[in-house]
Amino acid sequence: MTKLKVAVIMGAESDLPVVKKAIETLDELGVPRTVRVLSAHRTPHEACQFAAAAREEGYGALICAAGKAAHLAGVMAGHTTLPVIGIPVKGSFQDGLDALLATVQMPAGIPVATVAVDGAANAAILAAQMLALSDPDLAAKLQAMRDKMTAGVLESDKRVSEQFAQ
Amino acid sequence: MTKLKVAVIMGAESDLPVVKKAIETLDELGVPRTVRVLSAHRTPHEACQFAAAAREEGYGALICAAGKAAHLAGVMAGHTTLPVIGIPVKGSFQDGLDALLATVQMPAGIPVATVAVDGAANAAILAAQMLALSDPDLAAKLQAMRDKMTAGVLESDKRVSEQFAQ
Amino acid sequence: MTKLKVAVIMGAESDLPVVKKAIETLDELGVPRTVRVLSAHRTPHEACQFAAAAREEGYGALICAAGKAAHLAGVMAGHTTLPVIGIPVKGSFQDGLDALLATVQMPAGIPVATVAVDGAANAAILAAQMLALSDPDLAAKLQAMRDKMTAGVLESDKRVSEQFAQ
Amino acid sequence: MTKLKVAVIMGAESDLPVVKKAIETLDELGVPRTVRVLSAHRTPHEACQFAAAAREEGYGALICAAGKAAHLAGVMAGHTTLPVIGIPVKGSFQDGLDALLATVQMPAGIPVATVAVDGAANAAILAAQMLALSDPDLAAKLQAMRDKMTAGVLESDKRVSEQFAQ
Amino acid sequence: MTKLKVAVIMGAESDLPVVKKAIETLDELGVPRTVRVLSAHRTPHEACQFAAAAREEGYGALICAAGKAAHLAGVMAGHTTLPVIGIPVKGSFQDGLDALLATVQMPAGIPVATVAVDGAANAAILAAQMLALSDPDLAAKLQAMRDKMTAGVLESDKRVSEQFAQ
Amino acid sequence: MTKLKVAVIMGAESDLPVVKKAIETLDELGVPRTVRVLSAHRTPHEACQFAAAAREEGYGALICAAGKAAHLAGVMAGHTTLPVIGIPVKGSFQDGLDALLATVQMPAGIPVATVAVDGAANAAILAAQMLALSDPDLAAKLQAMRDKMTAGVLESDKRVSEQFAQ
Amino acid sequence: MTKLKVAVIMGAESDLPVVKKAIETLDELGVPRTVRVLSAHRTPHEACQFAAAAREEGYGALICAAGKAAHLAGVMAGHTTLPVIGIPVKGSFQDGLDALLATVQMPAGIPVATVAVDGAANAAILAAQMLALSDPDLAAKLQAMRDKMTAGVLESDKRVSEQFAQ
Amino acid sequence: MTKLKVAVIMGAESDLPVVKKAIETLDELGVPRTVRVLSAHRTPHEACQFAAAAREEGYGALICAAGKAAHLAGVMAGHTTLPVIGIPVKGSFQDGLDALLATVQMPAGIPVATVAVDGAANAAILAAQMLALSDPDLAAKLQAMRDKMTAGVLESDKRVSEQFAQ
Repeated sequence: MTKLKVAVIMGAESDLPVVKKAIETLDELGVPRTVRVLSAHRTPHEACQFAAAAREEGYGALICAAGKAAHLAGVMAGHTTLPVIGIPVKGSFQDGLDALLATVQMPAGIPVATVAVDGAANAAILAAQMLALSDPDLAAKLQAMRDKMTAGVLESDKRVSEQFAQ
Repeated sequence: MTKLKVAVIMGAESDLPVVKKAIETLDELGVPRTVRVLSAHRTPHEACQFAAAAREEGYGALICAAGKAAHLAGVMAGHTTLPVIGIPVKGSFQDGLDALLATVQMPAGIPVATVAVDGAANAAILAAQMLALSDPDLAAKLQAMRDKMTAGVLESDKRVSEQFAQ
Repeated sequence: MTKLKVAVIMGAESDLPVVKKAIETLDELGVPRTVRVLSAHRTPHEACQFAAAAREEGYGALICAAGKAAHLAGVMAGHTTLPVIGIPVKGSFQDGLDALLATVQMPAGIPVATVAVDGAANAAILAAQMLALSDPDLAAKLQAMRDKMTAGVLESDKRVSEQFAQ
Repeated sequence: MTKLKVAVIMGAESDLPVVKKAIETLDELGVPRTVRVLSAHRTPHEACQFAAAAREEGYGALICAAGKAAHLAGVMAGHTTLPVIGIPVKGSFQDGLDALLATVQMPAGIPVATVAVDGAANAAILAAQMLALSDPDLAAKLQAMRDKMTAGVLESDKRVSEQFAQ
Repeated sequence: MTKLKVAVIMGAESDLPVVKKAIETLDELGVPRTVRVLSAHRTPHEACQFAAAAREEGYGALICAAGKAAHLAGVMAGHTTLPVIGIPVKGSFQDGLDALLATVQMPAGIPVATVAVDGAANAAILAAQMLALSDPDLAAKLQAMRDKMTAGVLESDKRVSEQFAQ
Repeated sequence: MTKLKVAVIMGAESDLPVVKKAIETLDELGVPRTVRVLSAHRTPHEACQFAAAAREEGYGALICAAGKAAHLAGVMAGHTTLPVIGIPVKGSFQDGLDALLATVQMPAGIPVATVAVDGAANAAILAAQMLALSDPDLAAKLQAMRDKMTAGVLESDKRVSEQFAQ
Repeated sequence: MTKLKVAVIMGAESDLPVVKKAIETLDELGVPRTVRVLSAHRTPHEACQFAAAAREEGYGALICAAGKAAHLAGVMAGHTTLPVIGIPVKGSFQDGLDALLATVQMPAGIPVATVAVDGAANAAILAAQMLALSDPDLAAKLQAMRDKMTAGVLESDKRVSEQFAQ
Repeated sequence: MTKLKVAVIMGAESDLPVVKKAIETLDELGVPRTVRVLSAHRTPHEACQFAAAAREEGYGALICAAGKAAHLAGVMAGHTTLPVIGIPVKGSFQDGLDALLATVQMPAGIPVATVAVDGAANAAILAAQMLALSDPDLAAKLQAMRDKMTAGVLESDKRVSEQFAQ
C-alpha cells in the first residue's frame, strides 16, 4: 500500500517561517509531504481544486496555515472529507485571536482540527497521528519522538534541581 | 439603463431573522434585490459561481451574512470585484466576536465592507449608498430616510425633555 | 481487521447534553464508540490509565469534552500518541473562552485537535475522517453525509429565494 | 460626466504612515482623490462641513482613518449619505480593538463600511469598487489588479513548492 | 450666584431606563438638570449646538449616555471645554465593551470622564462632586449621601454576621 | 492550641448567594468562620481595621468576595500578612472579567490567592488546605472530601458508560 | 478666595513617566498641584489619610494613576467626596485592560472619572475643567489651549493636503 | 518540628527566568524549597507522583508555573490536598490570558491559588504566608518584608514630592 501524503498549505508565502516547523517535523517523522501556497481569496480556484482532488491524489490530511480572517482551512474543508488541520498564524491583531476564531469556530458538518496559534509542529504531529492509525511504523516513530521529549524534560529537571539544590 | 440589483445572501436559513431587516430596508428604498442561501462550506460551488457571475447578472453589491467562523463574505469577495458587504451574525460565542473578526480582518487586496454585528439595516443602506452614486433618485430616497430618522430623534428629544422638565 | 473505536470522554456528567451530539453523529456514521466520564482532576488515575491503554484497547481517537480550565484533552494527550480531539464546553465565563484557550493552546509536542466551542458533532466527524483514512466505507458515509448537508442548504436556498422573489 | 473623487481623511497627521497605502492604491487605480486631516474632536466644524458638502463637491466616497475612540468615520457619516469607509488605526491599546469597535459598531441608519485594522489598501479598493459600478474602465483596472495579485500567489506557490519538493 | 445646571443627554430614547438613575440621583441631591435626547449621528447639528452653547446656558457639566460605537460624549466634548461625563450603555455586544472603549479612549486634549458601563448613578454623583467644589451645601449633601450608604453597609454587615453567627 | 478561624467577607450583601457556598463548605469541613459584609469603598475604615487586627483575632485566612472593580481582597491584603483569598464575583460585565483582573493582577509584594469567578467552594477548600498544614484532622477531612468527589465521578462514569453501552 | 489645588498621585514611582504629562499640563494651565507617591496596598494609611483630608487641605480634585489591579483611584474615592480622576497605567498585561477595568468599573456611589489608558494629559485637563467652573480665568486658558490645538490640526491639514495635491 | 518545604515547579526550563523571582523570595524569607521541572504533558508520571507524595515528603505548598494551556498547577492539585499556587506564565498569546484562564478557572473541588501573570514573587510570599500560620518567625519576617516595602514607597513619595514641589 502506498503511503498517504500530507499537504502543507499556507495562505501566503509570508507564512513560511511559521509553517517551516511543520515541514521539518513531518520530515523528521518520515511522512511524505507536499508544500503549497494556496489562497482562499487570491487563488480560490487552485485552492478548491486541490482540496477536491486531494483524496484521489493520495493525501491523508491537509495542514492549512493562515492569518487574519483565516478562511483557508475552512474553505479547504468545504471541498473534501479528508481531515483538515488548521494553524492560526499570528498576525498584527491580538496575537492571532482573529485567525484562531476564524479557524476553530467552524459550523457543524465541516470540522477543522485546530492547533495553537503558530502551532506548526503540533499540526504535523497531529497529521502523523492520523496516518499512524494504519501505519505501525509511524506510530512507533511518534512514540520515540515522545520518549525523546520526555527525556529532554527529565534532563531539564535534573539540571535545574541541581542548580538550585540547597 | 437597467437598475443594478443587490444580492442578499445568508450562510444558513437560520440567519434569516437577522437578514430580514436588510431585505425590508432595500424594499423600502426601492432597490431591486435577490435573496439567497449560499454557504461557503456546504454549497461552495454555488456560492463561488454566484459571486463570479454577479457583475454579469446585473448586481451592484453583494450583502453576505454569516456567523461563527464567517467565511461567506470573504469567499464571495475572492470571486468578484464588486463591493461585498459583510454582516457578522451574532451566534453563541462572545456576541459574534468570532464572526466580526472573520469578516472584517480580510487580507490586503480583497476588502469586505463590514457593518456592525447583526447590522443588517446598515448593510442595506450601505449598498443603496453605493448604487446611489449613479442614481440620483435613490440618493434622494436615502436623504429622505435620513431626514425621517432625524425627525424621529427630534420628537424623542421633545418628548423626553418635556417629561423631565423641572 | 477489527474496526477502530472512538472514545467519547467528558470531564463531568453535566457535559452530557453537549456531548450527546458527538455520540449520535458517531452512531449515524456507524463508528463503534465508548462513552466515559473521566476527570483530569477528580479521577486522574482512571483518566490517565484509559489514555495510556487506549491504543492497545483498539481505540483510534479520543474525543474529550471539558469546560472551564479544560485540562482533560491535554492530559489525555500526554498519555497517548493517538489523536486526541478536544471539545471546549461552554460554561459560565465568556461563552467558553477559558475552555477554548485551555484546550487549543497546547505546547509543542502534544497536540489537541480542537473544534469549536460546543462543537460536538464536528468532533465526531473529525474522528470519523481520521478512521476513514483506512476505511473506504466510512469515507463513503462521510461523503454521503456531506452530500445530504449540501442538499439541505440547496433546499433552504430554494425556499428562501422563492419566499423573497420579486 | 466628471469622474467622482475619493476623499482620504485622517484624524491626525500621525495616521499618515497607515493612510499612505490608501493614497498609493487610489493613484495606482487612477482614482482622483483629495487628502485631508480633519478631526472629529479638534476641528469638528471643518470635519462636519466637509462631509456635508462632499456630494456637491464631487466626491463619491469618504475614507476616514482614526485610532483610539475612533469617531471620525461615524461623525462624517452623520453628515452625508455618501458611503463612508472606516479604517480603524492601530494605536497603543489591544492592537486597535478600541478603534475597530468604535468604527464598526455604528447604530442603525448610519453605516460605516469598516475594513481591517490598518487596512488602508482595502479601503481604497473598496472605494474604487463603488465608483466602478458606473465606470467600466475602473472595473477593468480592478480586475487587472486582482489578476496580478493572483499571478503573484501562483508564483509564490511555484517557488515554495519547488523549494520543498521531495 | 445662579446654580450651575447639569445636562443629562442620551443618544436615543431607548437609553432612558439606564439614564433614569442619573436623573433621580441629581434630583435627590437637588442639582438642577435638563434631560435631552441628542444623537451624534442622527441629530448632529442639535447635539453640537447644545454643547457649544452649554457654558453660556448655565451648565456646569454634561452627562452623555450612549451605546455601541458611543460617539456622543466625545463629540460633545469636542464642542465645549465644560467637563463631559460619559456613560457607556450596555448594548448587545460584549456587555458594552464597544461603548466603554468608544467613550474612554479619547485622544489627548479632549477628555471624557468615563464611569462604569451603565453607571448612571455615579455619573450624577460625579457631576455633583464637580459642582460642589463651589457649593458647600451640595458638598454637604454628597457627604450625607455617602454616610447613608456607609450606614446601609454597616446594617448589612450586622444582619449577615448575625445570620451566620456560630 | 485554639483553632484558627476563617473570615468570609463580601463587599455587598448582594454577593451572599455566591458566597454561601464558601460558608457551607467551611461548615462541612468543621472550620470555624465569621461572615462579614465589609466594603473597600463604602466602609473602608471597618474593612481596614478588620484586616489589620485579623491575625490577633485568631484568623488564619481571609476570603474576600467582590464584583466589578473588585478592590476588596487587595485592600484587605494591604493591611495584613495573613493569606487573603479572592473570589471574583460575576457581575453584569463580561462574566466577571473585570472582577477577575482586579483581583488577580496584584502588584509584587501583596498577593491575593485568586480562585475562579464565583469559585466560592474552592475558596473555602483553599483556606482549609492552608489551615490543614498544622491540623492533621482537617487534612484528613479534606482527603475524605476529595475521595467522596472521586467516588461521585466514578459513579457518573459507570452510569453514563452503561447508558451508552453498545 | 484661595485657588483649589490638584493632587497628582501615582501608585509607584515607576508610573512617573506616564504621570509627568499630567504635571506638565497642569503647570501649563497654571493650576497649583502637589505630586505624591501613595500606594493603596503598600502605604494604605498614608493614602487614605491623604484622601480623607484632601478637601480640608484645599484640593479640588485628585488624579490617581495606577497599573495592574489598579485600586488606587477607587480606594481614594472611598475616603473623600471630592472628584477623583483615574488614569489606568499600561502595564505588561493586555495594554492596561486590567488597570482600565479596575479603575472604571466602580460600584454605585463611589465614582472614579476614568480617562484613557495612559491618558495623563486628559486627566489634567479634566481636573482643570472642574476647577474652571468657578474660575473664569482658568476657563479662558482651557479655551485657549483648545484653540491652539485646533490651529495645530488646521496646519496639519494644510500641510498634508498640499503634500498630496493632485 | 521540621519546617515545611515549598516546591517550586515549572513546566519547562524556559520558565526559569520568571520563576527565579519566586526562588529568590523564598530564600530571602528563609523558606526551604526544592526547584523542579515537571511537565503535565511531557513527564506526567513524574509530575503526578511528585504531587501525590508531596505531603509525605514534607512539603507545605506547591508553586506551579506554566504558560499557554497551563495545566500544570491544576493537574498537580488533582493529586494532592496541599495548597497549590499557580503562576500563569506570559507566553506569546495575549500576554498570558490563555495561561491565566487555564490556571484560575478550576472546577469546584480542586482549587488553584492563582497569582498575577508572571507573579512569581507573590507566589512565594503567598506560600510563606501559608507556612507562617504555624511559624511565628516566618510571620515576623513577612511583616518585616512588608515594612521594608512600605518604607520604600515612603521614600519614593518623599523623593517625588520634593522633585515636583512648587
